[in-house]
Amino acid sequence: MTEPPVRTVETAADLAASAAAELARSGPAARAAMLCAVADALETSRSELVDVADKETALGTTRLDGELTRTTGQLRLFADVVVEGSWLEATIDTADSGAVPPRPDIRRLLVGLGPVAVYAASNFPFAFSVAGGDTAAAWAAGCPVIVKAHPGHPALSRHTAAVVADALDRAGAPPGSFGLVEGFDEGRALVTHPAVRAAAFTGSLRGGRALFDLAAARPDPIPFYGELGSINPVVVGPRRAAARAAEVAAGLVASFQLGRGQFCTKPGLVLVPNGSALPELVAGQLHRVVGVGPSDGPSADRRVPGRPPTVFATTAATVLAAPGVLLEECFGPTTLLVEYGSAEELADVIAAIPGALTASVHADDDDLADLEAALHSLQERVGRIVFDGWPTGVAVNWSMQHGGPWPATTNSLFTSVGATSLRRFLRPLTFQDAPAAVLPQALQDANPLHIPRRIDGVLQLA
Amino acid sequence: MTEPPVRTVETAADLAASAAAELARSGPAARAAMLCAVADALETSRSELVDVADKETALGTTRLDGELTRTTGQLRLFADVVVEGSWLEATIDTADSGAVPPRPDIRRLLVGLGPVAVYAASNFPFAFSVAGGDTAAAWAAGCPVIVKAHPGHPALSRHTAAVVADALDRAGAPPGSFGLVEGFDEGRALVTHPAVRAAAFTGSLRGGRALFDLAAARPDPIPFYGELGSINPVVVGPRRAAARAAEVAAGLVASFQLGRGQFCTKPGLVLVPNGSALPELVAGQLHRVVGVGPSDGPSADRRVPGRPPTVFATTAATVLAAPGVLLEECFGPTTLLVEYGSAEELADVIAAIPGALTASVHADDDDLADLEAALHSLQERVGRIVFDGWPTGVAVNWSMQHGGPWPATTNSLFTSVGATSLRRFLRPLTFQDAPAAVLPQALQDANPLHIPRRIDGVLQLA
Repeated sequence: MTEPPVRTVETAADLAASAAAELARSGPAARAAMLCAVADALETSRSELVDVADKETALGTTRLDGELTRTTGQLRLFADVVVEGSWLEATIDTADSGAVPPRPDIRRLLVGLGPVAVYAASNFPFAFSVAGGDTAAAWAAGCPVIVKAHPGHPALSRHTAAVVADALDRAGAPPGSFGLVEGFDEGRALVTHPAVRAAAFTGSLRGGRALFDLAAARPDPIPFYGELGSINPVVVGPRRAAARAAEVAAGLVASFQLGRGQFCTKPGLVLVPNGSALPELVAGQLHRVVGVGPSDGPSADRRVPGRPPTVFATTAATVLAAPGVLLEECFGPTTLLVEYGSAEELADVIAAIPGALTASVHADDDDLADLEAALHSLQERVGRIVFDGWPTGVAVNWSMQHGGPWPATTNSLFTSVGATSLRRFLRPLTFQDAPAAVLPQALQDANPLHIPRRIDGVLQLA
Repeated sequence: MTEPPVRTVETAADLAASAAAELARSGPAARAAMLCAVADALETSRSELVDVADKETALGTTRLDGELTRTTGQLRLFADVVVEGSWLEATIDTADSGAVPPRPDIRRLLVGLGPVAVYAASNFPFAFSVAGGDTAAAWAAGCPVIVKAHPGHPALSRHTAAVVADALDRAGAPPGSFGLVEGFDEGRALVTHPAVRAAAFTGSLRGGRALFDLAAARPDPIPFYGELGSINPVVVGPRRAAARAAEVAAGLVASFQLGRGQFCTKPGLVLVPNGSALPELVAGQLHRVVGVGPSDGPSADRRVPGRPPTVFATTAATVLAAPGVLLEECFGPTTLLVEYGSAEELADVIAAIPGALTASVHADDDDLADLEAALHSLQERVGRIVFDGWPTGVAVNWSMQHGGPWPATTNSLFTSVGATSLRRFLRPLTFQDAPAAVLPQALQDANPLHIPRRIDGVLQLA
């Protein structure tokens, strides 16, 4: 077994900086090979990795096996994305010497930003950790990665890091393409290191904000992509609540308990019409529904990962009297049912909801027509809106959006899951009247990478 | 004549917030009509606008006429961009109920962020001011705009604002799509107003940094796109310097004086081989070359907009002894010639250059081969690299990149000029299993907007 590449921040940053130029200029095929080599190595080490993970997190081998499959799937998706080439945004405006003024030849593509710091999450020890989505996206963008290990699974972090380092070495990736650092102070040092050009984080609002502030206060500020917290509101329309209450109740009970309620997409606030059977049906499944008032909270009492699943219930008026307390994310298997008495009350509660990753709507066609204003208001507050379903499943594909207005993420312009998440680590670079010998492959006349490009304003397929 | 919509920050922000939802949901045709209406109105008022501008800025009617043409061209380009539709990044992953787990239908597009604050620049009273590129890009993205007028041309700002407001009104744009605020304190209040979702700025490093810090320190941080300052290095290869010194000298002398040396793309640092005739040739054209040493500066002495064009000259060793002083941007008709004695010395100076908008390279094929490392190093530091030309011309097209690593811009991931600059004001929104009636046009099965889309991972033309 290779030694895990645990490094000081200084060493990791120096090595990453020295790898950055070579990695940024590596071709799509080389990068895809690198991503697949890591996926293959994780598969080869699957049983020992799942074993280490289960010992350390007690999440269970079924869940961890599935999460590792998702993790290797992410790496392979990015290999496909890199080769497909749309991410390069290759654009050519040809010269016209007869124009007034004469028009130069200008060619644009996206290139990697440089070393990226990835802060691993606690709740997904594979998929948002050492070899998780942020790492895969940064490699796909051609950026070296320095992972700050999460203290919740240190042995797994080292074990995964050793597998990754060995795979990258055998795949011929530039040394310094990957490194691991550990420790709270090291995490702070990493985001302020001059060589680090961007950072990605999944975790708490408080921790993320502290690192965001450090990134923004640098002499040279860097982008900090934090996925921080999300209450993920659910709206149940009156007709749907009347017609399919049992189905909605069962779906909710399953969804908010997934992963012990630690998913960032957990439905944490459920708006149900006054007088529906939903609270009672949920209570029947859980034997535990607790009423809360405006003086309850802050959320300390509701942070109950070790306790039985708990649903709290209250009214829209109560929430509106104390939105700061009751509309805060709670980690763990809990959710808050809120009864609304009218469309106006529903609109008022939605208007008080902070930015979120998702919103879910359970409604029939007539409900949807009545809820049009509420739907629009929800869309302004979230990155993904789910109909007649639950937000806890996050597909890793081309269309996924995992991000939303503050405080869901520090930067709502991007996603941290799916094909487009590598855009976080890219910047445009334009060549004007460049000799052919100087142009990167993506911009050469013959289109040797066979990628989609825009020529004189017209999009052309590969 | 309509009254110019000069407002308090509070009123402008309230009006913008009330317009945001309608503008974000407006179709491409409506937005294009809005952009063209403003362009038409500016054309109709051309002579009076140029007259007011010349009285206030003394930039001359030829330059101002050309700049107004560029400004209306920008608005019309964005109308084309909006209708072309690639900017929506419409993406559909179809459902597969037979997959394990079942795959939902997921559809993604980009939507406007909400009200955008635009801080007008002093140096382009039309193209980077009230109805300039940032304003056009934000409207194209479906965002209301609040312009902070530049105090350098207050009468022109009000006059332009009146023309714009009238045109938008007649085009049926939502009231609040545009407003103007004036004053230093108002500029600070604007970037911290809760309704403002992003800000764009062109100006000084100090002013931009102050506003960036306010944007980042908000309870809910917002993206701040500042175009701050750039030294725009030029490298002349030894063979090119020997063979075409007079041509290079003439080009340089013309370029650094353009717009009184106030262009953000002014070549401010020119690396020439030791012993070339270039300094003498430049001196012959200017009768003014001033040697500088490491104790000269800071750049106060070199900020000479009211003085005759001046070239300073020094050696690479001197620059390396005082890079903080000599590698700082100087506004005005000056540039700094730096003689390098070897490829190593050239590399050392390039490594000390801060992030810039552009780099220019004058070199023949053999020079380019010798300068490969220097070229790569330049590419890491800039957003646009120009060959055998000068950076002061900035084409407004699909491929332009006007942005670069800090301190050229606060955010090197985007451009402030050209078709892709609207991406700064957009965020992704994903619909999962949405009923057809709820989907925006861009994501409907029939593709009623006739735009390029990605279906199940495959890019398809309109």
